[in-house]
Amino acid sequence: MVFTLPSFTAPDFSGPLFTDAPLVTFEAAPQRGVVPENYHGTSIFPEYFHLRQGEWHLLKESRMDCVVVHEHDGTLVVKEFRNVEKGDLVACGRSEQGEEGIFVHDECFNFMAPPTEKFAFRSQTTRETAFSIDYDALYDLLEYEKDHGFITWVLGPAVVFDRDAREAFAELIHQGYVHALLAGNALATHDMEAGLFSTGLGQDIYTKQTIRLGHYHHLDALNTIRGIGSMREAMARGLIRDGVMRAVLEEDIPFVLAGSIRDDGPLPEVVGNVYEAQDRMRELTARSTTVITMATQLHTIATGNMVPSYKVENDGTIRPVYFYTVDMSEFAVNKLANRGSLTARSILTNVQDFVVTVERGLRKRNF
Amino acid sequence: MVFTLPSFTAPDFSGPLFTDAPLVTFEAAPQRGVVPENYHGTSIFPEYFHLRQGEWHLLKESRMDCVVVHEHDGTLVVKEFRNVEKGDLVACGRSEQGEEGIFVHDECFNFMAPPTEKFAFRSQTTRETAFSIDYDALYDLLEYEKDHGFITWVLGPAVVFDRDAREAFAELIHQGYVHALLAGNALATHDMEAGLFSTGLGQDIYTKQTIRLGHYHHLDALNTIRGIGSMREAMARGLIRDGVMRAVLEEDIPFVLAGSIRDDGPLPEVVGNVYEAQDRMRELTARSTTVITMATQLHTIATGNMVPSYKVENDGTIRPVYFYTVDMSEFAVNKLANRGSLTARSILTNVQDFVVTVERGLRKRNF
Amino acid sequence: MVFTLPSFTAPDFSGPLFTDAPLVTFEAAPQRGVVPENYHGTSIFPEYFHLRQGEWHLLKESRMDCVVVHEHDGTLVVKEFRNVEKGDLVACGRSEQGEEGIFVHDECFNFMAPPTEKFAFRSQTTRETAFSIDYDALYDLLEYEKDHGFITWVLGPAVVFDRDAREAFAELIHQGYVHALLAGNALATHDMEAGLFSTGLGQDIYTKQTIRLGHYHHLDALNTIRGIGSMREAMARGLIRDGVMRAVLEEDIPFVLAGSIRDDGPLPEVVGNVYEAQDRMRELTARSTTVITMATQLHTIATGNMVPSYKVENDGTIRPVYFYTVDMSEFAVNKLANRGSLTARSILTNVQDFVVTVERGLRKRNF
Amino acid sequence: MVFTLPSFTAPDFSGPLFTDAPLVTFEAAPQRGVVPENYHGTSIFPEYFHLRQGEWHLLKESRMDCVVVHEHDGTLVVKEFRNVEKGDLVACGRSEQGEEGIFVHDECFNFMAPPTEKFAFRSQTTRETAFSIDYDALYDLLEYEKDHGFITWVLGPAVVFDRDAREAFAELIHQGYVHALLAGNALATHDMEAGLFSTGLGQDIYTKQTIRLGHYHHLDALNTIRGIGSMREAMARGLIRDGVMRAVLEEDIPFVLAGSIRDDGPLPEVVGNVYEAQDRMRELTARSTTVITMATQLHTIATGNMVPSYKVENDGTIRPVYFYTVDMSEFAVNKLANRGSLTARSILTNVQDFVVTVERGLRKRNF
Repeated sequence: MVFTLPSFTAPDFSGPLFTDAPLVTFEAAPQRGVVPENYHGTSIFPEYFHLRQGEWHLLKESRMDCVVVHEHDGTLVVKEFRNVEKGDLVACGRSEQGEEGIFVHDECFNFMAPPTEKFAFRSQTTRETAFSIDYDALYDLLEYEKDHGFITWVLGPAVVFDRDAREAFAELIHQGYVHALLAGNALATHDMEAGLFSTGLGQDIYTKQTIRLGHYHHLDALNTIRGIGSMREAMARGLIRDGVMRAVLEEDIPFVLAGSIRDDGPLPEVVGNVYEAQDRMRELTARSTTVITMATQLHTIATGNMVPSYKVENDGTIRPVYFYTVDMSEFAVNKLANRGSLTARSILTNVQDFVVTVERGLRKRNF
Repeated sequence: MVFTLPSFTAPDFSGPLFTDAPLVTFEAAPQRGVVPENYHGTSIFPEYFHLRQGEWHLLKESRMDCVVVHEHDGTLVVKEFRNVEKGDLVACGRSEQGEEGIFVHDECFNFMAPPTEKFAFRSQTTRETAFSIDYDALYDLLEYEKDHGFITWVLGPAVVFDRDAREAFAELIHQGYVHALLAGNALATHDMEAGLFSTGLGQDIYTKQTIRLGHYHHLDALNTIRGIGSMREAMARGLIRDGVMRAVLEEDIPFVLAGSIRDDGPLPEVVGNVYEAQDRMRELTARSTTVITMATQLHTIATGNMVPSYKVENDGTIRPVYFYTVDMSEFAVNKLANRGSLTARSILTNVQDFVVTVERGLRKRNF
Repeated sequence: MVFTLPSFTAPDFSGPLFTDAPLVTFEAAPQRGVVPENYHGTSIFPEYFHLRQGEWHLLKESRMDCVVVHEHDGTLVVKEFRNVEKGDLVACGRSEQGEEGIFVHDECFNFMAPPTEKFAFRSQTTRETAFSIDYDALYDLLEYEKDHGFITWVLGPAVVFDRDAREAFAELIHQGYVHALLAGNALATHDMEAGLFSTGLGQDIYTKQTIRLGHYHHLDALNTIRGIGSMREAMARGLIRDGVMRAVLEEDIPFVLAGSIRDDGPLPEVVGNVYEAQDRMRELTARSTTVITMATQLHTIATGNMVPSYKVENDGTIRPVYFYTVDMSEFAVNKLANRGSLTARSILTNVQDFVVTVERGLRKRNF
Repeated sequence: MVFTLPSFTAPDFSGPLFTDAPLVTFEAAPQRGVVPENYHGTSIFPEYFHLRQGEWHLLKESRMDCVVVHEHDGTLVVKEFRNVEKGDLVACGRSEQGEEGIFVHDECFNFMAPPTEKFAFRSQTTRETAFSIDYDALYDLLEYEKDHGFITWVLGPAVVFDRDAREAFAELIHQGYVHALLAGNALATHDMEAGLFSTGLGQDIYTKQTIRLGHYHHLDALNTIRGIGSMREAMARGLIRDGVMRAVLEEDIPFVLAGSIRDDGPLPEVVGNVYEAQDRMRELTARSTTVITMATQLHTIATGNMVPSYKVENDGTIRPVYFYTVDMSEFAVNKLANRGSLTARSILTNVQDFVVTVERGLRKRNF
C-alpha cells in the first residue's frame, strides 16, 4: 500500500473557547537555568499560545517537559531548563484549554480511534500481539519517508553483535532509509571491533567462537581509532571495510554518539558531556519525521523525551512524527508507550530479527 | 552448506573399565508404580547395561528420569515410574562408569568442543548472542531432516495470534518440514478461531482491531467444533480453510493436543489426562531427530524431559537429536539449556519473527 | 487499619431499563457438551437474569466463559461447556443492558474510581510501581479474611525452593491465613524433597550446595511417597517433619494438586485428568473471598478464569473477591490484569521475599 | 554468625614460574590517551608485575580494562586509556603466568570451591534460586563492614518511588551501613519530588493516587532546587524533611550523581561530563570493600567495570571486595555475573522488598 500522511485538523479558533481566552502571560526567568514558579511545561502535542487578540501561535520544534520562551523577535522557542537565560520571558499557566491563553491540541490527526468495549482481552501490547501489520505499515512508511521525511534510528550495541543484523543495517543506510543515527560509545566501539576482528566482545559475530585474547579486541579497537584520531580517518586508511559506522560515514549521515559512565575509551567522536549530547541529539530529532529505537532503554527514553508528536514542515503543513520502539521486554517498551501518543508503537522482538526482516522486506518490495 | 551427521563413537568395550565391570543387577518392583530403592535413573545420554559378560546393551528410546526394566524377551525398556508393573525387573545402581554394570556415554559425538579460557565474556546465551549462524545451521539441518529425519514442533498459541506467522507455519507443514506437532488446547482453539473469524482472542490477527463481541469468538469456535465432533469434520464441511491445524490434517501429520487446567472447551481431540498425553507425546518424541519448541514453557519442559540426546536408527546407526528452544525470556530458555547437552540450543526472539524468517529462508534456498 | 468490606449497590430494578426489559430466553442444548448458537457467555461480574416479569435473578457461583443453565428446580447454574447435558436449558443473548433480559452489573462496589487526566505517567503496574500500600492493605485484608472469609493460595514450586520462604508459608498456614491450596505436582514433590533431603532439585535449599546424586532426590521423594501410598501416611510415619504440605495436612486445609504434562511421578494425591482437576479447583474457588497466586503462570490463569469478582454469602450479602498475582514478570501479571476487575492486583517481586515479608508483617501486627 | 574475612594466599614467588620469569617491559605511550600496541589490559584480579629480579609488585587500586603505568616514583598506577599521558610508561604483555613478567592471581582467596558433577540441575542463578542464605550472609557482612569496611550503594530511581523503600534506605544510612552513594540525576530528582510533594512522577508514593498536575512535580522539584542552588541549601531552608538525599547530606556521605542523556534539569550536584563522573566514581569505588547495586543496569555495569575483586588495606593486608547486584531480570544480573568472580552475587527480586527486608533484618539483629 502507498502511505498517505494523516491530515491535520487545526483548532477552530473562531469558537468561544478561543475568542474569549485571555492572552498568555510571560514572566522573566529569575536567574540562569531557573524559570518562574508558574511556568508552563510543554507536552508532546501541538500547543498554541495566544500572543495577541485573535493570534494563536503554534510551537515549532517542541519537546516534552521544557518551557516556552518569547524571544525578542516575537518567536516562541522551546527551551530546556538548563538553557534558559536570566530574564528570558517564560510562558506561564498550567491549564490547557485556553483558560490562560494556552491550548494543547491533543486530538489533531485523523487516526482512526480505537473502538472501546466493556469486555475486551488484549488491550496491551505484549510479545503475543500480532506484529504483521506493523511490519507492513513500516515498509509503507519507510518508503514514503525515504524521499519525503527524515528517519532517525536509535541503536543499542546488540545490532552489531550479529553479522547478519550488522550487514542488514548497513544496507538500510546505503538504500537511503537512515537519515540520522543516535547511539552511544558501545555501538560504535563494537562496530569497530567487528570491522577489525570480526568479533563482538571477543566472540566471533558469526561462528560465536570465543577467540583467544578476544577480551582485548574492543580495547584494541578503541586504542587503534584513538591513535588514528577518528573513525573516518581509519576508514580512509582502509582499516574498516564494513559495518554500520562505515556506511554512516560513506553516506554522510549525521550522527551523535553520546557518552555514558560505562564507556571504555571512548572513541574520539563521542560527546562526553551529556547535556551537550542532548543538544546535538535534539538538532537531529527536531528534523525527524520517523524515529525507530532498538534495544537501548537509555537512548530510547532520552530520544522519546525529545520527540514531539508532530512536525511543522517548511511549507507550514503539520504532520505526525512516528515513533517505533523495538525491544525484548514489555517493561522497556511500556516506558515509552506511556507517552500517550497514538503515533508511538512497540514491537517486541529481538532487534537482530527485526533489522534483518525489515531490510529483506524493503528489498523485496523494490525488486 | 550441506548438513552431515556428526559421527558416533562407541565406547571401547575392550578396555578394563568394561572387561572388569560386574553385571548390572535388577530388582523386582515391589508394587505397581513403585521401584526398588536403589533404582538407576536414566539420563539424556546413551547408556549401556552389562547384561552378560562382555555384552553391553544400549538403551533404545530412552528418556530422562525414568527406570530401566529388563523384559522377559531380554530387551531393556525405559519406563516412567507410573508405568512400572509390580515385579518388573528394574536396573539398580547409581554409578555411571561401569562400577555397577552401567555406563553413561556422555561424550559420544564428535562435536567440536568449545575452547575454554580463563577470561571470556559472554559465556551464556542471551538476547545479545549472535543468532545468524543458528538460522543458517537450522536451514541445513531442516533440509536434511526433511528427507532423513523426523522433525517435531512444539507450539504455544502465540504462533497463531499473528497472520503471517500462522501462514508461514502452515507453509512449513506443506513443504514437508513438520513431521509431528505437540501443543495444547489453546493452540488449536485459537487456530480454529482464526480460521472462523480471523481473530485471536477477539482481536483481528492482522489489523489488530478489537472486534465487537470478539471475546465470544474462541468460545464459539469451541462450541462449533464440539458440535461437529472434530476439527477434521469441520474442515470436510469447508468451515476451516486455512491455518496450522488444517495443514496438519491435510498432510496427515501426527499430533498430540495435551489438556491443561486453563482450557476452555476443550476441543474433541484434546487429551484430558496428562499422563495419557505424556505417553502419546513420547510415542512421537521417540521417533524425533529434531525438536523445535516455540513460546511455551510448559510444553517445552515437558518435551525436553522426554527427548534423549541420541536416536538409534532402524539400521542401528546412532545419531544426535537436535533440540531448539525459541522464546523471549532468558529464564525460559535457560531452564532447558541446563540439560547439559551440546545438542540443545536456544534462540531468544519473538516466535512470530522466527517462524516467518525460517519459512522465508528455506523457501529462498529451494528457489 | 481495620478492613471494611466495600458495600454492594444493587441495580435499581425500578428503572425503565429493567421494567421494560423482556424475559431472558433459554434454548435446549443440542447435545452433550454443546450449547445453542446464541448462548450467553458469563463474565466475572454479577449478572442478573430476568426470569419472570419483575424478577431478576443473580448468578451464584459464577465463573467466566461459561453458560447459564436453568435447572428444573428454578435455579440458575453456571456450567462449563463440557459439563452441559443434552437438553439443558441454556440462557441466550449477548447484550448486557437488559435488552435480552440479561444485565451485567460491572460497577457494583463502591471502590473509589481512579481519577482520569489527559497527561499522567505510570498508568500501568510495573516493577517500579510503589507496593507499600499493597502490603499494608493485604495485612488488613488477611486479618479480616482469616475470620470472615476464605483465602485460597495458588503456588508455583519456587516457594519451596527456599528455606525461609517454605517455613514462612507453613507458618501462614498454621496461623490461619490459608484456607485452601491450589498447586501442581511440582510444588508438592519438591516440598517432599525438601522434607526428606533439605534440597530442591538436588540443591540445598539453604546453603545452595549441590549435593552429590542430588538429581535423584525428587525422584526418590516421589518413589518413597508412592510406595507408602500418600503424603499423609508418610507424615504419620514421621518421614516428613516440616514444609508446606505437612502444614496443609496438619491443619486439614483442602487442596487440589493438578497434574501436568511435565510431571514426574506423580504423587498419589495428584489429579491426572485436568478437567476433573478444574472441577475440584472450582469447588474451592467458589468458596474463596481472596485468592493469592504466586509464581505460576499456568495455575494463575487457570484460577483467574474460575474466580468471579464477587461472592454471594450464605446470608445473601454480596461482597467482592480479591485477587492478587505475585510474579517477577510484567508479561505474567498483565495477563491477569487484563480481566478488567478493580479487585485484581499485581505485585511484581520474587515470591520468596513476598511470602517472608507477609508472614513477618502479619506476625508483627499480632505481637 | 560473625563474619570473618577470607584469608588471602599470596603466590609462592620462590617457585620456578616466578624465579625464571623475565622482567616486565614498559613502552612509552605514543600520544595522549593512546597506549602502545602490546599494552597489558588489567583484570579484576590481583596482578603482580616483575619490576626487578625477584621483586613482584602488586597493583593497588586496580580496575578492569585499564593499563598499568610505571610512574617516576616507582609506583604502578592503573589508568584509563583516556587518562594516559604521552610518554607514560605502559606495561606490555598479554600472558598471565609470568611469561612476560606479569602474573594474574585469580585464585587467591580461600573461598570454598563449588563441587562439580556431571549431572547437576540449577547451575545458574535465576529467580528460583534460594536467597535465604544470601540475606543472612549479607547481614553478617554489613555488620562487619559497618565498622571495618566501606560500603558503596549504587541506586536506580525505583528505590525512591515507594515510601517504605525510601524510608528504609534512609534508615540504613542513619544506621551507618552506607559509606558512599552512586546514582544518577533521576534518583535525586525523584527523591526531591517525594520530599516536596510525596509523589514519584506525579503518583503518590504510598497511596498510588495520580495527583492533578502531578506531571509537573519533578520539574518543579528541579526548578526549586536549581533556584536555591543546591540540595543542601534546600534542606537548610527546611524544604526537604526526609528521604535518601537528606540522610546522605546529614550523615556527610560522599556521593556522585552522574548525568545521562535522559536527564531533565539537572540538579546542581549532577556531573554532566560522564568521564569526569567516572573519575569521581572511581575515587569512591577504590575505597569500597562491599558494593551493592540496585535496579540500575547502566550504573551497575559502570560500577562493576571499576571494582576489582580485592582491596589492599592501609596495613597491607589484602581482602576480597564483595559485589551484590539486585535486579528483577536475569538478563541484567547475568551481565555482571559474567565477570567470573566468586565475590559477585546476584539477588533476583524487587529492590523495594530487598531494601525493606535488609533494613528490618539488620534492625532485628541489633535489637
